[in-house]
Amino acid sequence: MVYIGIDLGGTNIKAGIVDEQGKILCKVDCPSKVERGHEAVIADMAALARKAVEKAGLTMDDVKCIGIGVPGILDPKTGVVPFCVNLGWHNVPLRELMRSHIDKPVFIDNDATVAGLAESVAGISKGSQSSVFLTLGTGVGGGIVINGKVYSGAHGVGSELGHTIVEFDGELCNCGNHGCWERYASATALIRMGKEAAESHPECMIYRHVNGNLDRISAKTVIDCAKAGDPVASTVFKRYAYYLAVGIVSIINSLDPEIIALGGGVSAAGDFLLNAVRNEVNEMIFYKGMPYARIELATMGNDAGIVGAAMLGR
Amino acid sequence: MVYIGIDLGGTNIKAGIVDEQGKILCKVDCPSKVERGHEAVIADMAALARKAVEKAGLTMDDVKCIGIGVPGILDPKTGVVPFCVNLGWHNVPLRELMRSHIDKPVFIDNDATVAGLAESVAGISKGSQSSVFLTLGTGVGGGIVINGKVYSGAHGVGSELGHTIVEFDGELCNCGNHGCWERYASATALIRMGKEAAESHPECMIYRHVNGNLDRISAKTVIDCAKAGDPVASTVFKRYAYYLAVGIVSIINSLDPEIIALGGGVSAAGDFLLNAVRNEVNEMIFYKGMPYARIELATMGNDAGIVGAAMLGR
Repeated sequence: MVYIGIDLGGTNIKAGIVDEQGKILCKVDCPSKVERGHEAVIADMAALARKAVEKAGLTMDDVKCIGIGVPGILDPKTGVVPFCVNLGWHNVPLRELMRSHIDKPVFIDNDATVAGLAESVAGISKGSQSSVFLTLGTGVGGGIVINGKVYSGAHGVGSELGHTIVEFDGELCNCGNHGCWERYASATALIRMGKEAAESHPECMIYRHVNGNLDRISAKTVIDCAKAGDPVASTVFKRYAYYLAVGIVSIINSLDPEIIALGGGVSAAGDFLLNAVRNEVNEMIFYKGMPYARIELATMGNDAGIVGAAMLGR
Repeated sequence: MVYIGIDLGGTNIKAGIVDEQGKILCKVDCPSKVERGHEAVIADMAALARKAVEKAGLTMDDVKCIGIGVPGILDPKTGVVPFCVNLGWHNVPLRELMRSHIDKPVFIDNDATVAGLAESVAGISKGSQSSVFLTLGTGVGGGIVINGKVYSGAHGVGSELGHTIVEFDGELCNCGNHGCWERYASATALIRMGKEAAESHPECMIYRHVNGNLDRISAKTVIDCAKAGDPVASTVFKRYAYYLAVGIVSIINSLDPEIIALGGGVSAAGDFLLNAVRNEVNEMIFYKGMPYARIELATMGNDAGIVGAAMLGR
């Protein structure tokens, strides 16, 4: 038996056929064109799933179930998506509508949660019973796996690690709250910090790198300049690593997983990021001398969405 | 069959016989006298356990297992206590030594974790599958129950919710770190805030309440003055409720339990505390309009240690 995994994004829909071990047998994709409304998008998802099955040389009889990763708020128990800004969805009964196209069990969960499951089945967290996955991108997404299973909490609103609070009366977040971790540990935050530093230090490498056009500063700009030893960029990056470590320490002191995997744009910094974060965490860890979570880079990349969604029903 | 629960404190050892439902059949206690070293303390714990069995009119054949709540760091898997400041213990093989006195299965866990289990078996969190217990005392202790079982993490260092970080470069904590939640949400923190306020506002009710002797300010002093409507005390208490709510919101956004139970000294403020905290949490919650954890007062009081320890092996 195989599993269908669907990675539903605001721009593209990707679907794949995945085996028991989390290996992708084949994959297909199409544009999301969300402006058409949810019914057309879900019809396309179903068509894409059928196409993937056919491309793999299989039939629907070979498929055990369908999993969908959704970039928003959802209830994994009812299969309903109360709201999803990226898709413009409100109270969409995703599972029910998907089953009206393909009569298989349908599982849905948050995209970061799904990516975390992928890492635990076939990526860096493979073999662990408990893991946390963090995606350091526009925001900070979190995926928690406990006892080998996705953990979304009692009401399906858990694992929103980017919205744990790390600073009283801190930076305003898109969620309306102040001081959320993602305002400090996302790629967006690193870019903001880089801009602020370049503004007050026009002599720095970040400023020169973008010829003074500060809107061109990316996370990579700051990281590259820090890697090259620029003192201003190094200070910014060290501070970013501290911010990231603060949230990681809180995850260790509360959830104490076996492994914490870092994915998303900023994780492209590789060992440069890992070393900085590991040093900061080691300074701050509560139980000095006791073993604690390994901090590693995620390895599944863009396939995480398909694999993790497929594995929701395993 | 019954269970023996032992609440090992720095001042007293309490032991009780507990039934399957978490009801205490009888209890006994003795002073800890920790200065005698761990072997004498453990011998006393065993003697106390035998005394409790006898008092209940039972024999050791009626006892399924023994549970011990320890006020420090421990490894629930190995049964070893690496260090416990309150007891002056270093690398004490508690389970092994206890079993040399009474040959029954021995389970050990952190005192706050054990109290959380007690609430979930026989207290306010009864009937829930997932709950978080917070003790607001000298520090902030945390107990996590998931799927009806104590959750201590992969290395036994989890559920230290008082040492999650809520403020960058914040107040220095006893653990050596900065900005730990317990520096803001414990009774100790409320007292510190009360003192600071009374110092700068000698006209306030807190100052008058202790006749200017600020060292006499307790958590109850601040709470009573806030309840009486004193503006300075009210401001302090409102800020305290915000600090407490910040950590609770992070627990909801990460763990999303069914219920969060508040125990320890500050919880004596009752509904006055609950209303203030619930209002703050409601303002800050991420998934507006979705259901989230109920916030309630713990109900087991001083029995939580015995009952929870006993239930570790259920």
